[in-house]
Amino acid sequence: MSALDRTDPAGAVAAAAARCSNWGRWGDDDVKGTLNLVTDDHRRRAAGLVRRGAAFSLAQPFDMDGPQQGWRRRTNPVHTMLDTGVDAEFADQGLPHGIGGADDVVAMPLQCSTQWDGLGHIFDHGRAWNGRRASAVVTSDGDGVTGMETVAGDFTGRGVLLDVGRHLGTDPAGTGGELPDGFAITAEHLDATVAAQGPTSAVGPGDFLVVRTGQYGRTRRDGWGSYAGGPAPGLSFTTVDWLREHDVAAVATDTWGFEVRPNEFDDAFQPLHQVVIPHLGLFLGEMWALEELGADCAADGTYEFLLTAPPLPITGAVGSPINPIALK
Amino acid sequence: MSALDRTDPAGAVAAAAARCSNWGRWGDDDVKGTLNLVTDDHRRRAAGLVRRGAAFSLAQPFDMDGPQQGWRRRTNPVHTMLDTGVDAEFADQGLPHGIGGADDVVAMPLQCSTQWDGLGHIFDHGRAWNGRRASAVVTSDGDGVTGMETVAGDFTGRGVLLDVGRHLGTDPAGTGGELPDGFAITAEHLDATVAAQGPTSAVGPGDFLVVRTGQYGRTRRDGWGSYAGGPAPGLSFTTVDWLREHDVAAVATDTWGFEVRPNEFDDAFQPLHQVVIPHLGLFLGEMWALEELGADCAADGTYEFLLTAPPLPITGAVGSPINPIALK
Amino acid sequence: MSALDRTDPAGAVAAAAARCSNWGRWGDDDVKGTLNLVTDDHRRRAAGLVRRGAAFSLAQPFDMDGPQQGWRRRTNPVHTMLDTGVDAEFADQGLPHGIGGADDVVAMPLQCSTQWDGLGHIFDHGRAWNGRRASAVVTSDGDGVTGMETVAGDFTGRGVLLDVGRHLGTDPAGTGGELPDGFAITAEHLDATVAAQGPTSAVGPGDFLVVRTGQYGRTRRDGWGSYAGGPAPGLSFTTVDWLREHDVAAVATDTWGFEVRPNEFDDAFQPLHQVVIPHLGLFLGEMWALEELGADCAADGTYEFLLTAPPLPITGAVGSPINPIALK
Amino acid sequence: MSALDRTDPAGAVAAAAARCSNWGRWGDDDVKGTLNLVTDDHRRRAAGLVRRGAAFSLAQPFDMDGPQQGWRRRTNPVHTMLDTGVDAEFADQGLPHGIGGADDVVAMPLQCSTQWDGLGHIFDHGRAWNGRRASAVVTSDGDGVTGMETVAGDFTGRGVLLDVGRHLGTDPAGTGGELPDGFAITAEHLDATVAAQGPTSAVGPGDFLVVRTGQYGRTRRDGWGSYAGGPAPGLSFTTVDWLREHDVAAVATDTWGFEVRPNEFDDAFQPLHQVVIPHLGLFLGEMWALEELGADCAADGTYEFLLTAPPLPITGAVGSPINPIALK
Repeated sequence: MSALDRTDPAGAVAAAAARCSNWGRWGDDDVKGTLNLVTDDHRRRAAGLVRRGAAFSLAQPFDMDGPQQGWRRRTNPVHTMLDTGVDAEFADQGLPHGIGGADDVVAMPLQCSTQWDGLGHIFDHGRAWNGRRASAVVTSDGDGVTGMETVAGDFTGRGVLLDVGRHLGTDPAGTGGELPDGFAITAEHLDATVAAQGPTSAVGPGDFLVVRTGQYGRTRRDGWGSYAGGPAPGLSFTTVDWLREHDVAAVATDTWGFEVRPNEFDDAFQPLHQVVIPHLGLFLGEMWALEELGADCAADGTYEFLLTAPPLPITGAVGSPINPIALK
Repeated sequence: MSALDRTDPAGAVAAAAARCSNWGRWGDDDVKGTLNLVTDDHRRRAAGLVRRGAAFSLAQPFDMDGPQQGWRRRTNPVHTMLDTGVDAEFADQGLPHGIGGADDVVAMPLQCSTQWDGLGHIFDHGRAWNGRRASAVVTSDGDGVTGMETVAGDFTGRGVLLDVGRHLGTDPAGTGGELPDGFAITAEHLDATVAAQGPTSAVGPGDFLVVRTGQYGRTRRDGWGSYAGGPAPGLSFTTVDWLREHDVAAVATDTWGFEVRPNEFDDAFQPLHQVVIPHLGLFLGEMWALEELGADCAADGTYEFLLTAPPLPITGAVGSPINPIALK
Repeated sequence: MSALDRTDPAGAVAAAAARCSNWGRWGDDDVKGTLNLVTDDHRRRAAGLVRRGAAFSLAQPFDMDGPQQGWRRRTNPVHTMLDTGVDAEFADQGLPHGIGGADDVVAMPLQCSTQWDGLGHIFDHGRAWNGRRASAVVTSDGDGVTGMETVAGDFTGRGVLLDVGRHLGTDPAGTGGELPDGFAITAEHLDATVAAQGPTSAVGPGDFLVVRTGQYGRTRRDGWGSYAGGPAPGLSFTTVDWLREHDVAAVATDTWGFEVRPNEFDDAFQPLHQVVIPHLGLFLGEMWALEELGADCAADGTYEFLLTAPPLPITGAVGSPINPIALK
Repeated sequence: MSALDRTDPAGAVAAAAARCSNWGRWGDDDVKGTLNLVTDDHRRRAAGLVRRGAAFSLAQPFDMDGPQQGWRRRTNPVHTMLDTGVDAEFADQGLPHGIGGADDVVAMPLQCSTQWDGLGHIFDHGRAWNGRRASAVVTSDGDGVTGMETVAGDFTGRGVLLDVGRHLGTDPAGTGGELPDGFAITAEHLDATVAAQGPTSAVGPGDFLVVRTGQYGRTRRDGWGSYAGGPAPGLSFTTVDWLREHDVAAVATDTWGFEVRPNEFDDAFQPLHQVVIPHLGLFLGEMWALEELGADCAADGTYEFLLTAPPLPITGAVGSPINPIALK
């Protein structure tokens, strides 16, 4: 791919969309996009990758100490109690025979922490996945076409970790390697990481590609800073062809926004989203916690696993908080 | 076990707790209860059960059309949009190069739909799991000891469906069989279902026991009625010994409250909860959607599968909404 | 006014809008509608109506026992605690020198209980108050033009209670008189009530007209039933000219929806709203608690008072919960 | 009053409570505290203060651009739309005859912006107002004794503005005068301000005392900084006797926490709250917007007005967001 013209994000988006579009590939009525690539046979083989039975949670903590600072009215999760153990022990809960209970409530943006972006999350010039009009997909009632409930059972398959932070980054504090903010991961970087990691890292159709930059680990050491919305390492706009050619089912990173920030154009906002979600029908995972998994993969040299990352099937949601599980 | 004395739930609870308690079994500091029974080796073997790669979501829809009617301030999930596709197409979202976006928020009780009960959810006479004082575990700040974040990676293992509704119920509308409200499933009923279903249904240590009564299917046909809190088929109080002897890691049902309603005592509220959560350290799944899985198991005669049901790791939560995935 | 053609609500709306419109009356930039009629002099005279200093709260309770049943995702208010007195007395709140605290949170639809409808609440064929395009007024970011914050200080003035329930209704249980559901209050009914109540009930420009039907009192006796959205007494569509001629600043009732339900057309939804909000710029108060005030006015024969009903200035809100205070 | 011993906040609290307590003053069952001092006659005379009919809203904006930064899980208000004007104009809302609508929801801590502290908000050594046990007053179900609904109609009376910022502060930017953070307003400062302002500023029983420090105006110029919880001018702990002797019904300021911050003891947290709420039964207003009212009072030399500041009667609430209205 030729060099990007930093002054023309709209032109780059249009050209990439023309080259890589999946519109119509799975029929006019399709709501699953690249998840169509995850077949029963793919999942059967993915289960066969489990060798030790070790399970890894790839979710960040969901609480008020999270990274959100109010952008787009995104707060951190507010968790409140309806009943507590203190009540059960010292107050009258009105229950018989000594039983007591605690109960709770949460209010949160669906994309405040570890999450999937759904296909209704991003539009290009008023067009949603498969060419639909955005206004016909997501109203104030939610996403009536591609809401997360339509893919409730589809996020299980072979996961592959490309630990770019470890293989191409520096390791300032012995935490496993990390890329600096603003580092644009290119197709060459992805290929080099595959080569460095060895054969368990080959990426093919229907795989869930998980990219570790190390930025989340850096926040565990240095504090959140502007993790939610600020500068970050991430995928280069130029990886769109690589993603399309490898036909991955989804891509997840340990950063807020999946693609490199600042973006690679002078005046831009998430142009890679603008291609991959509405034109490829690609699901994006963001804010995943990959430190423990990264260390384990480095230790045993095995970068593939069974990934199960089920969204909450909130009707009409354009994204979902998740707790992805990697089983090795 | 002898017949229950309907007038003495407190006595029955105390006796069952004395017979079946797991306090101290995994050390004084334990926060995982019966999930300790799920080992890497167990998970490895569970992955080996995957034959076809078929994935089933066991979650009910999360939306305002749910069963909650306000009990304990439990509402149905309220999902609202922060940005929409209609805005993206027709209003000015303030974004460059034609990108548009939708974003959303949810407010919901953690136990309003398909969920896990955590160990901080129920107490017996002011005592929580492992003998701790309830007031030292769950305050208004949440569960500081056994919050769901402490078991974020532990809900993967062998699942076994006991379709009691199909094997012992009636099938009024060809929906697969269902038990009437108030039907108390005993140890004998569980054993008979295992026998009827065949060898893939054997239940052992660390297994996730999934019991289908058919009540959820009935609501899909007849409407919610009082599903959230009303009469229901469910486990008899007398199954506590069976659960302890089989050393299951968790039990999930397709009903609101896991145990039979009305309860089997004259003036009672969920006495089986009062034993199994604080004394056994057992995790309970409630409001699971088992119609599709039940039909598939009946069709292929295989009732075991890899279950992955990760909770959202909301810090201090005493329960979590989930989307359990069964992989066969 | 001639009889309504039950088959043509759109025609009736258009004709009423043509007769009564206030578009442009207070300039093209106006955001206050009929609140422009409330001048300093009006408020000064209203304060002069206070004779005894008796204050009446006209708000219904805000809690989970309210009337909402989920229509339009409207729940009742969910009030949860962040800290409690039980914690302060028995748990460690981490505070010095014996201080303890309680704190709380609410989640609620802005129109779930006693409230004002703002000018951004209702549109006619895509047009908002003063002829603006609806899409230019209320996006997912809220009402950027006529949000409640623009009228934060404008809801103080002379209130007049027209107790139609008492004067034209029946009194089945000695609760002060009530109209049956479906009773359409016409201009003649309003005039007759003014005449029956005497000179303190005269209605003029800038007044806050408060109409008691008695339906709320009926729910206190018989239960909510379908109070939030069901049949109700209320203003007839034909009162639009009366409201315009009397130039009231606002109208409030003790019912869910201000106008009679079922509406007076065969297939209709709140046609009087469709005229008075976007075309007159009239603010509507709904679900007010008028039982105590009604009894007091009947007792002393004085139906006018100083009304102060300040909205919460939530930026961009199209309505607001309120606690209106009548001072006699 | 003698100088404070900075090392003994508990002793100072106990001594002040012993000197100033109102426990039992209005009977053992009392739930209104100092609001008992607001009589009908007081309100009648307060209405007589209205000379021009000018109304002032004393509320800050309620939105995501507020001061909250997460302390005590306090977020800024999250306002989301259920329906919008964009939907009404361009999407199908399913409504007849051209009517369209917008609707909205808010989630917010009750004390996130302009508010009243209720009597259940603060405790002293496990004791609430009137000597009740804190655990018997505020559980996870809310304040079952002194919830804001019990004083729904009681916040109307004579307001007096003491503009200490204007009279004793500096005026760095021509904004009317402001006190520096950490400035402790003493009884002498209050008396001096009364003297400087003249006879309309006399403070007596049942009055609503409103104290302007100018800090809020400073935030409008310089940004929020740590307004919600950080250093601030405010009342000195030593004013407790003055407040008790003048028998005010309530005190409100334009700061987050009413009393001076840092507090006047070495290791302390809001010791004046600990005396005045549980022992005096005094209601506190916080985060009021007093810039416009302060300028008007300075201009016309009249510092008294009719104040109406009704709380939302949220059942069991320990505080309430408000929009106070001053009518001059």
